[in-house]
Amino acid sequence: MRDLNAIGRIGIGDGGAVTRLVFSIKELRSRQVLIHLMRQAGLDIRIDAIGNIFGRFEGTDSRAPAVLAGSHLDTVIHGGKYDGPVGVIGALEAVRTISENKIPVRSSLEVVCFVGEESSRFGFSTLGSSLAAGEVHAEDLTHAVDPQGTKLENVLAGLGITRRNMKAIKRDPKSLKAYLELHIEQGPILEAIGKRIGLVTSIAAPSRFRVVFVGRADHSGTTPMDMRKDALVASAQLIEYIEKVCRQYASMAKGRVVGTVGAMKIEPGVINAVPGRTELAIDIRGTSAQAKNQVARMVKQQARAIAKRRGIGVEVLTIREENPVPLDKRLLRVSQELCEEKGIDYEIMPSGAGHDAMQMAKITPAGMIFVPSKRGISHNPLEWTDPRDIALGAQLLMETMIRVANEKL
Amino acid sequence: MRDLNAIGRIGIGDGGAVTRLVFSIKELRSRQVLIHLMRQAGLDIRIDAIGNIFGRFEGTDSRAPAVLAGSHLDTVIHGGKYDGPVGVIGALEAVRTISENKIPVRSSLEVVCFVGEESSRFGFSTLGSSLAAGEVHAEDLTHAVDPQGTKLENVLAGLGITRRNMKAIKRDPKSLKAYLELHIEQGPILEAIGKRIGLVTSIAAPSRFRVVFVGRADHSGTTPMDMRKDALVASAQLIEYIEKVCRQYASMAKGRVVGTVGAMKIEPGVINAVPGRTELAIDIRGTSAQAKNQVARMVKQQARAIAKRRGIGVEVLTIREENPVPLDKRLLRVSQELCEEKGIDYEIMPSGAGHDAMQMAKITPAGMIFVPSKRGISHNPLEWTDPRDIALGAQLLMETMIRVANEKL
Repeated sequence: MRDLNAIGRIGIGDGGAVTRLVFSIKELRSRQVLIHLMRQAGLDIRIDAIGNIFGRFEGTDSRAPAVLAGSHLDTVIHGGKYDGPVGVIGALEAVRTISENKIPVRSSLEVVCFVGEESSRFGFSTLGSSLAAGEVHAEDLTHAVDPQGTKLENVLAGLGITRRNMKAIKRDPKSLKAYLELHIEQGPILEAIGKRIGLVTSIAAPSRFRVVFVGRADHSGTTPMDMRKDALVASAQLIEYIEKVCRQYASMAKGRVVGTVGAMKIEPGVINAVPGRTELAIDIRGTSAQAKNQVARMVKQQARAIAKRRGIGVEVLTIREENPVPLDKRLLRVSQELCEEKGIDYEIMPSGAGHDAMQMAKITPAGMIFVPSKRGISHNPLEWTDPRDIALGAQLLMETMIRVANEKL
Repeated sequence: MRDLNAIGRIGIGDGGAVTRLVFSIKELRSRQVLIHLMRQAGLDIRIDAIGNIFGRFEGTDSRAPAVLAGSHLDTVIHGGKYDGPVGVIGALEAVRTISENKIPVRSSLEVVCFVGEESSRFGFSTLGSSLAAGEVHAEDLTHAVDPQGTKLENVLAGLGITRRNMKAIKRDPKSLKAYLELHIEQGPILEAIGKRIGLVTSIAAPSRFRVVFVGRADHSGTTPMDMRKDALVASAQLIEYIEKVCRQYASMAKGRVVGTVGAMKIEPGVINAVPGRTELAIDIRGTSAQAKNQVARMVKQQARAIAKRRGIGVEVLTIREENPVPLDKRLLRVSQELCEEKGIDYEIMPSGAGHDAMQMAKITPAGMIFVPSKRGISHNPLEWTDPRDIALGAQLLMETMIRVANEKL
């Protein structure tokens, strides 16, 4: 908790809101603190080209693949202090405890902090883990631009990462035995059912895209209603439609689809002009790839239909298309057995949010442990998890790491 | 056209966009050029404390009240070259022509350039004409601050205008016989009906207010649709409603109401968070105060109803409440008779946009002449009026000035 709070103070502002956007000075500072903590814990530190930090504790068999555990330290704008850091500091605490208590492990253990899990700055999520998994393609970066106009591609170029050498960051899958991630649930389910641990079966992945409506900016006083090409009214109709269609696909059986317009640009964006251009950032998720893709298709069709009806232009730009990712059943079983041995009441559940585990699952068996979020709130200064639940989660992570490190494959 | 183009080159930038914000160096330069042109035309120049420039041509009866004509030279950010200057240079050309041709006029004629008609810098419109009409009250200036934090009140203090002597700028109503303003329409109507002259009956004034919806920011992946308090979906419903209700009040008989949401803030405003708070900037205008106020009331009621239905908070903040200003019927009749004598096809119409005439109407009979705007575009570098239409407008302005100057009251 002391280390978690130290990280949580970096980028803290009014009302306890924490802002550590990827590659900001605050986020870099949090990484420096982590490096300091890893050094104090006696870990061997390796930092890859994008800035993912790996702190290694040698096992008895140095040639055996490593058990990796961690998460991220970057946050959304005005976020909380637990989304991400709980998994990094939880893994650090697990490895520190193993080291201090000289608990024998065959495989080496690694604590990892991935860069840029949140999409808040560039609209691009799980950046560091995607690169570590070799899952970023040059064309994925095309539309990744921050609100100041900085292109993610240019930031990467500044770090020496180009379209040509991008794949070199990929972590060798043979060097890994498993990836484990402790995380706050960021949803209301564990609290509602009164359980302290969630074991995650799969991660619902988003379809993310932008819809751009191009109407015409006109004077708000002189342009009659029937001569307008108002891009904002078109957007309003699409926003309402997204809510309606997602409610139809909300049940578990229908694929638990949720859809959100989280951000929108309006141009020219002044009180005395009819909006001529809008740009909506849309996020559609579901536990069923089929349902999620179906809803995303319907939303895009509807955008085109609205534009046609109103005589304005429309463009759909894909930000990211991902499919729900199943996590490793064997790893889940290890944690499940530990819960049963220790009498911990757990819930087997999917994750509605995306995580670095989603990317790591592509190159190694991956598992996730959830701890409850008070009122389901996250990405908000009110984000809160009971320290006892964090401790319990970190302990279960440690026990799982030990068992997996010593398990014969 | 030569003088108009000379003014249009001051503050010109990329793509022909003109920026001459009030009290900027560019705007001051445009005033200097006008003073030079007035001097060349042999006018007597008087500049009041705020910087309104009056160029006077003596009539045969120097004690008779003067016929004033003009507009403004300041622009919005990235505006065009005709909104404002057409009325100033048009009046100058009218008086120059009268002078050169030694056309006898009983009343003196004055060309005026009012300071700061546009609200783009301080959020305060028709500054110079409001002061000339004695219509600025100290408390009106309280919220007038530019984006750099400069207070309009401090700029005025620098010119020697304080809360105490503010009223001294007021032009003596007894010194004026009429105010006439030539202006581009800034709307699409004249072009659409193929007429070259608009005679303005009244100026529609806006009700401006903000609606703030306060829901709850939640994670876009983990929050089921039925547990959300999405402020943006609430806003979308209001935006659609505004279009719907304004269409019902769009006819001339119903008060030609137009309603626009031109700007909206969304918080936190990221792709992966349900919007927790939105702030809509709403502008409702109409030629009938009653209809405009009725629609504004309905929009506010609807905002409250939406918030109640969705279980979220709502707040309504007034920005400005103004009533439509009727222009002088007698002045309109003079111009109308001239059009009929000369076979000019005119349209009698209200103005959707605000103008200096709105303020001058409070101290003297005021009239306005419109010339067509191509595609209705203004406040934009694409603003365009055919030079032949500008010439026709200036000629009609001149004929109206002569007739009014010689008319017995």
